[in-house]
Amino acid sequence: MRITDMHITPIALGDPPLLNAAGLHAPYALRTIVELVADNGLTGIAEVPGSAAVNTCLERAREVVVGADPFNWNALRAAIAARFPDETPADRGNKPWDQRQVVQVYSAVDVACLDLIGKAVGQPVANLLGGIVRERVPFAAYLFYKHKGAGGELGFGTDSRATGWDAARQEAALDPAGIVAQAKAMIREFGFKSIKLKGGVFEPAAEVAAMRALREAFGPEVPLRLDPNALWKVETAIAAGKELESLLEYYEDPSRGQEAMAAVRKAVKLPLATNMCTTSFADIPGSVRHGSEDIILGDHHYWGGLRASLDLAAICRTFKRGLSMHSNSHAGISLTAMTHLAAAVPNLSYAVDTHYPWQYEDVIKGGRLRFEDGSLAVPQTPGLGVELDRAALARLHANFKRCGLTERNDEIEMQKVSPGWKFAATRW
Amino acid sequence: MRITDMHITPIALGDPPLLNAAGLHAPYALRTIVELVADNGLTGIAEVPGSAAVNTCLERAREVVVGADPFNWNALRAAIAARFPDETPADRGNKPWDQRQVVQVYSAVDVACLDLIGKAVGQPVANLLGGIVRERVPFAAYLFYKHKGAGGELGFGTDSRATGWDAARQEAALDPAGIVAQAKAMIREFGFKSIKLKGGVFEPAAEVAAMRALREAFGPEVPLRLDPNALWKVETAIAAGKELESLLEYYEDPSRGQEAMAAVRKAVKLPLATNMCTTSFADIPGSVRHGSEDIILGDHHYWGGLRASLDLAAICRTFKRGLSMHSNSHAGISLTAMTHLAAAVPNLSYAVDTHYPWQYEDVIKGGRLRFEDGSLAVPQTPGLGVELDRAALARLHANFKRCGLTERNDEIEMQKVSPGWKFAATRW
Repeated sequence: MRITDMHITPIALGDPPLLNAAGLHAPYALRTIVELVADNGLTGIAEVPGSAAVNTCLERAREVVVGADPFNWNALRAAIAARFPDETPADRGNKPWDQRQVVQVYSAVDVACLDLIGKAVGQPVANLLGGIVRERVPFAAYLFYKHKGAGGELGFGTDSRATGWDAARQEAALDPAGIVAQAKAMIREFGFKSIKLKGGVFEPAAEVAAMRALREAFGPEVPLRLDPNALWKVETAIAAGKELESLLEYYEDPSRGQEAMAAVRKAVKLPLATNMCTTSFADIPGSVRHGSEDIILGDHHYWGGLRASLDLAAICRTFKRGLSMHSNSHAGISLTAMTHLAAAVPNLSYAVDTHYPWQYEDVIKGGRLRFEDGSLAVPQTPGLGVELDRAALARLHANFKRCGLTERNDEIEMQKVSPGWKFAATRW
Repeated sequence: MRITDMHITPIALGDPPLLNAAGLHAPYALRTIVELVADNGLTGIAEVPGSAAVNTCLERAREVVVGADPFNWNALRAAIAARFPDETPADRGNKPWDQRQVVQVYSAVDVACLDLIGKAVGQPVANLLGGIVRERVPFAAYLFYKHKGAGGELGFGTDSRATGWDAARQEAALDPAGIVAQAKAMIREFGFKSIKLKGGVFEPAAEVAAMRALREAFGPEVPLRLDPNALWKVETAIAAGKELESLLEYYEDPSRGQEAMAAVRKAVKLPLATNMCTTSFADIPGSVRHGSEDIILGDHHYWGGLRASLDLAAICRTFKRGLSMHSNSHAGISLTAMTHLAAAVPNLSYAVDTHYPWQYEDVIKGGRLRFEDGSLAVPQTPGLGVELDRAALARLHANFKRCGLTERNDEIEMQKVSPGWKFAATRW
């Protein structure tokens, strides 16, 4: 099998005005769809976080991708690596989302090659990753402080015809009561059994109060997580952490950097999780040296693909780190890839993060994927088990061209609402 | 695909009277051949070090292996694990060879499943491990102090009709001149470009002298390695190591245990390699903490298979350990599995150890594999690319039954030559 063509299609998905440590989500979240066409007529697909920079990298990779054998990932990965200077952990940047680009090229090509291989040999991707250990993958309710608004063309406006979660998704949530109402609506719709709140938005006391309100509303049987996106000083994180000890399943990135995380971890009786201080293989020795976290929230888009994520899983087993998954705004191809990976990693022991409920469009045939009881079934069909809906792809690509965004910049969006607002790497 | 049958066939391969830290090789080396038959008519094969204990474990695993899907290694591995108590690093024992058994069951089943999968999907095993990064795998000349003798039925006797390496293989080698003559004959026959001497047999000064003689005979372009099998005290290993600094590519297991190895490593300007102090995933955190070695000599028979060996490779990349491979006496199935693995691991950066030249029988169709210029070509045919020769298997199984050995015990063999000889974990 040889790859004969590579299509790179940027898309924009409507995204509500969600607040986070870096500001406010724009009305559209950017993603890029990658298609690899093979000489046997098969096509493999993948999805990565979109930006002009990533798209340029993908374009530059095309020359080595076309002509390659999808079965020889080692050779293809080496050829991609040879085209790009090495990324360093520092290239991640200090925003909540990872700024690196080359890892996303690896991820896109790895996933699309696995889709091709799976289709060629008649196996679901999870079986190419070692085999299905769980037929359903549980996801977590991912709550956001937010302004009123639907995102997409409506932006801060709302669609008054919407019902159920579609209506609730448009509501503002700026205090504990709003967060609880959001959680109830999301759980009613999707059946999630764990809850995560994206913090780092309001003062720590307000966010601790939101977690208390969630506990009161849902009781101790629903695991809770809070993610201040590394915005808290060590002393703030320790003080808040002590109040959270009886409330949280894990405490995600309260402070910035491995040393700060290790200090919080020593002082607080809570498992610490990260997708910000240990985000690459180069970070792992420091993680072991400092003892910076208990749980690594992997993300195949940023660790270099599904196969690289298996390497991360092996390291987590070896060093007794827990493992779960981080998410950005995404469509159904990423969600399906995450589901295959989670299905194939024995030591992935927590409900996985996903922004998927916040989107309402998708690029896949058959429309949006349906959670049941908070989980997704692992597709048992060859490859990823999802196919591109070309009309939807065209429509979402038109979104991309019309919206004019070329990268995620939550600070600029926030400034439209709060003039002069500035991102701070450490705020409280 | 489902596994419908599992055949476990112990064999014995003629093995010359090779000396090592634990004593003397018996006239036969035991291996066990595992065949997994699938419902589509395909058969997958594997080979592991043989012993009554391992064979018992394999028999006990049969119940969960038969009926399993070879594509779901995670599920099959978990089912095997559930049948056996966990092994600990201490179960390795202090002999030069690893005493653990369950890892060998994993290894046998993993390799045979990969052979089945490769045949089912039309891909060589190396492509199931990420893809071929080198089409030829270099191996090292593995020298032994030895008594005169051919092994097998001839034992300490020799076959006077033998020529070339077959004749040289029978010669004694008990001093530097004998070792140099052995190296010359082996390299003339196989073309190896690196040399390893199994040490821990004579006083350290004698073994250092042998390394000097090899350097004089072959020059600095042929990398040399010495393996005293952990038999030297730290101070002995440091003193010898300083004399070896200008001679060795790496210094293999001079002393016993991670702390001793770390002490030698700090004092001597040589890369340290191990297959004795870091031999399982449970040993890895200690290796990182102590800094016990520079190079891990993996062995898919003892790390739990080819896929587990990829996990080890990822750990070695992450922690900047070098990686190569250990070997015991073996036949062509193991050699081929090692070749696929070495072909698919980008960071396997040294010529691989193999005892293969010391054997003269094999169980595979087409007879013994041929090294060219010290390397083997990676088979490009589906699966492992080697098939069982059933007549040879029957003959070697008859060897097994006739020889009466049930486990490797080099101490007993040594006592036949040197009455009262005792293994010592630390000798000099």
